[in-house]
Amino acid sequence: MKWIVLKKPLDYDGSQISSLWGYMEADLQEDSIIAFRGSCDVQLRHMIDLEDRKEGDPIYSTDMLHFIIEHFDSTDLKLIYARQRLFTAMVAEVLLQRGISTSRAGDDLFVQGKKLSISIASTSSVSQKIHFGMNVEHGIYGCLKDQGFDEKDLFTVMEKIASRYVDEIHDIEKDLRKSRPLGVM
Amino acid sequence: MKWIVLKKPLDYDGSQISSLWGYMEADLQEDSIIAFRGSCDVQLRHMIDLEDRKEGDPIYSTDMLHFIIEHFDSTDLKLIYARQRLFTAMVAEVLLQRGISTSRAGDDLFVQGKKLSISIASTSSVSQKIHFGMNVEHGIYGCLKDQGFDEKDLFTVMEKIASRYVDEIHDIEKDLRKSRPLGVM
Amino acid sequence: MKWIVLKKPLDYDGSQISSLWGYMEADLQEDSIIAFRGSCDVQLRHMIDLEDRKEGDPIYSTDMLHFIIEHFDSTDLKLIYARQRLFTAMVAEVLLQRGISTSRAGDDLFVQGKKLSISIASTSSVSQKIHFGMNVEHGIYGCLKDQGFDEKDLFTVMEKIASRYVDEIHDIEKDLRKSRPLGVM
Amino acid sequence: MKWIVLKKPLDYDGSQISSLWGYMEADLQEDSIIAFRGSCDVQLRHMIDLEDRKEGDPIYSTDMLHFIIEHFDSTDLKLIYARQRLFTAMVAEVLLQRGISTSRAGDDLFVQGKKLSISIASTSSVSQKIHFGMNVEHGIYGCLKDQGFDEKDLFTVMEKIASRYVDEIHDIEKDLRKSRPLGVM
Amino acid sequence: MKWIVLKKPLDYDGSQISSLWGYMEADLQEDSIIAFRGSCDVQLRHMIDLEDRKEGDPIYSTDMLHFIIEHFDSTDLKLIYARQRLFTAMVAEVLLQRGISTSRAGDDLFVQGKKLSISIASTSSVSQKIHFGMNVEHGIYGCLKDQGFDEKDLFTVMEKIASRYVDEIHDIEKDLRKSRPLGVM
Amino acid sequence: MKWIVLKKPLDYDGSQISSLWGYMEADLQEDSIIAFRGSCDVQLRHMIDLEDRKEGDPIYSTDMLHFIIEHFDSTDLKLIYARQRLFTAMVAEVLLQRGISTSRAGDDLFVQGKKLSISIASTSSVSQKIHFGMNVEHGIYGCLKDQGFDEKDLFTVMEKIASRYVDEIHDIEKDLRKSRPLGVM
Repeated sequence: MKWIVLKKPLDYDGSQISSLWGYMEADLQEDSIIAFRGSCDVQLRHMIDLEDRKEGDPIYSTDMLHFIIEHFDSTDLKLIYARQRLFTAMVAEVLLQRGISTSRAGDDLFVQGKKLSISIASTSSVSQKIHFGMNVEHGIYGCLKDQGFDEKDLFTVMEKIASRYVDEIHDIEKDLRKSRPLGVM
Repeated sequence: MKWIVLKKPLDYDGSQISSLWGYMEADLQEDSIIAFRGSCDVQLRHMIDLEDRKEGDPIYSTDMLHFIIEHFDSTDLKLIYARQRLFTAMVAEVLLQRGISTSRAGDDLFVQGKKLSISIASTSSVSQKIHFGMNVEHGIYGCLKDQGFDEKDLFTVMEKIASRYVDEIHDIEKDLRKSRPLGVM
Repeated sequence: MKWIVLKKPLDYDGSQISSLWGYMEADLQEDSIIAFRGSCDVQLRHMIDLEDRKEGDPIYSTDMLHFIIEHFDSTDLKLIYARQRLFTAMVAEVLLQRGISTSRAGDDLFVQGKKLSISIASTSSVSQKIHFGMNVEHGIYGCLKDQGFDEKDLFTVMEKIASRYVDEIHDIEKDLRKSRPLGVM
Repeated sequence: MKWIVLKKPLDYDGSQISSLWGYMEADLQEDSIIAFRGSCDVQLRHMIDLEDRKEGDPIYSTDMLHFIIEHFDSTDLKLIYARQRLFTAMVAEVLLQRGISTSRAGDDLFVQGKKLSISIASTSSVSQKIHFGMNVEHGIYGCLKDQGFDEKDLFTVMEKIASRYVDEIHDIEKDLRKSRPLGVM
Repeated sequence: MKWIVLKKPLDYDGSQISSLWGYMEADLQEDSIIAFRGSCDVQLRHMIDLEDRKEGDPIYSTDMLHFIIEHFDSTDLKLIYARQRLFTAMVAEVLLQRGISTSRAGDDLFVQGKKLSISIASTSSVSQKIHFGMNVEHGIYGCLKDQGFDEKDLFTVMEKIASRYVDEIHDIEKDLRKSRPLGVM
Repeated sequence: MKWIVLKKPLDYDGSQISSLWGYMEADLQEDSIIAFRGSCDVQLRHMIDLEDRKEGDPIYSTDMLHFIIEHFDSTDLKLIYARQRLFTAMVAEVLLQRGISTSRAGDDLFVQGKKLSISIASTSSVSQKIHFGMNVEHGIYGCLKDQGFDEKDLFTVMEKIASRYVDEIHDIEKDLRKSRPLGVM
């Protein structure tokens, strides 16, 4: 698995959650996590979560850190959702190391009671994907700038999160190659 | 999914990791998390992790909080390992709410640099299981008593952890029933 | 798993077989069986069975009892087909308890040699679904009214069938949580 | 898939539920259903159902019709349990055609309120299996002789049940090769 | 599994890779391999391989032998890719028996350093498919005519390849029904 | 995936087919292929193929090249058998490059009509494994020495085969990360 932090800004419009986006954009032929910074403006037709679609509210933020994760090892919905929750918890751990305390509810992070992040996970017939976005600046919701992040910190935290997720997955892959099956009563 | 906290102490000897232990002991016919307090003394033949077995070190602690998780929805190794990591992160979150700061490395928690917990996950042909144990008292390793836990707190934290894991799984099950499949580039 | 009988009539046009229809219509976030009464008029583009599509015959009936089943626990085609056949056999059992003798051929029920029901099953990347419809009134095919059903009976039988399928699935889920893996020769 | 009715009697002792028994006994290299007549005396170590094992009651009958089903197409527990229920419903249908009315509760058949049959299903890493047995004669439980079966009928009904199950599975396999995937809302 | 060699020519335009094409064209309700001869002209919208699509080069050949394989037993991407490589190796074996030496690189065959074949494999929610095409005549790439194939040989080799693949799959299905699960250290 | 050629001889006794043997012997925590040279003497209790066990013939050879493959990405029997056949075809390709012509029948290679190799594949709950052995010297069966192999060649061919299999698997993994799902008719 490979991690990449894009230097240039990229606006998230929901198309990036499609399977094989990483291959089309960057010839990626490994499982991957790609991080970038940009606005978020998800078109209705790209909304994966039908709750959002029903509410009809646009998902909009002018400035976010985005993480796009793609796995090809399974098309099991339960696995990608467990990975999404684990990723969310891991982001909270990285923020905590920087002194920012958040609380997690499922796939959402809150900072001082305000929603800091959005996330979605799903599968196609060929891959599993996660999108996770955190506000950099926001007038109403929680955001990293309010927590003392400056410009340079943003890239550092993107690298930290992306590389740690890769380590986490590698660590799991190693562990499952040294464990015996269970006995049965 | 159901959670149970045993009132009576129970010593963990490694047999409880077997599939269907919950049914044999408590007629459980649901996915479950069972928490209890007791010593930990894992016999070689019950060791799931071959690294432990190779090292030949006994896994021993006089007083621990134990959590035994069993899922019957899949026998995918990757899923149970993702759940194990998520559970470990979630335990850290609960401890943090109580003011105890830990750091997580894979399926291990450390408090002030000392190892606080042990964990193992695996599958049989019929179920997936996780064992997670945290020291209550220990002379060398990290433990809850050193962090200011008193007797009553121990049951509260077991309930908190067990119930929160059930909520976490239910939340995932609900989320995956409202998300569309991914598009493909 | 949850069962629902809709009080108001609803015409089946084939769109209800889509994954996540239950969530869009009724915020359902569990596996479910939804029963309702209404006409049946399946548009070509909603036809799942290519045999029907090839024949180009419209699937039409003025008055039917419909059952829409959705499971999110797997996307295995073989599992949803086995469940469809089991459901069909179970409907025949319920009808027999009411004194109506039918014969089953795969996913079809016949009464006095006349086709009483239609059914289809398939999967998407997110769920498995079954549609099963039985004629209430029909000039040519078999129908419940000809078998002595009156208006009130129709709701009773919908409740009976829907609730029994849920019991059937729960019973299976319980059984598989008390059985050991097989030995091998 | 192949069906076989053994001419010679064979006593069921629980070893026949093991994966690959059909290959060891009869060089079977297809999915199969094997029917035979004989006593039933399941040793504790062959008990798959832990409920039976806990109760410690021997499973004993002097004269039964036995059906042993083996599938190699999946090791999914849910699939073999759905097949087991479908098989049980199908046996009831065959008996009904002979004028014998039974009621089904999960994987059990009852005749005039008395238990007629026993069944178990499970998987190993290589196959799925079902055992289903029906009393031919019994002093306490329901049995076929009490329902007017004579010696010759027994072989006829074994052939009927075994061949119909094979037809059922073939019919499913054909159906799933003509159905489109579901749309999604 | 069934094999068919079409007597009449058929041009491959990429639509034949769709799931259930065999059912729509020939009422096939088994796993199958269908061989035919015709030109190859894959429209952009039918391109499965995004590398081809990115390059935007038409996939074109005036005269090819085509093989379309469909399996309904799994929707696992890894399985269909392993089968595609095995099929490619098997084609090389058949050619070698005819005295034509090729070299295989993944799913491509080369003859005297020139590309002889094209291939693609993928899955939908209902089936797995492979397309494999070999040039009969070609000005630039490798082709069978240059290797001494005459018209009659072409049908013979199509039959040989198609029937051997079916034998190969049947042989695998038989083998996996006589092997015990692995022990674990 | 990693490949290793052991410098020291190692006798194959059937224990090496067990899951996690690579971890116990060499701390391997990746998918792997391990090649070594040694005798072959498979004990009855290590026989995976029940046909061998039934025949009761010892599997014996004084000098063989052995390949042990382990994959943790799936426990699907069909996948490991497809991989076993692909591996066998690939060994034939490597031998052909050295001028040695063999014919393959399933998982067996023959040279000048004499059996050159043995192979077995199976799964446990934690991994898939293949054993493949080729005679170096043999009085009755085909062997590499009769084909002009000298001592040095043996290590070269082991490296060639082991590294090529790793390349083959990596190539597949790359390919499946650039292919769109199939359309459906």
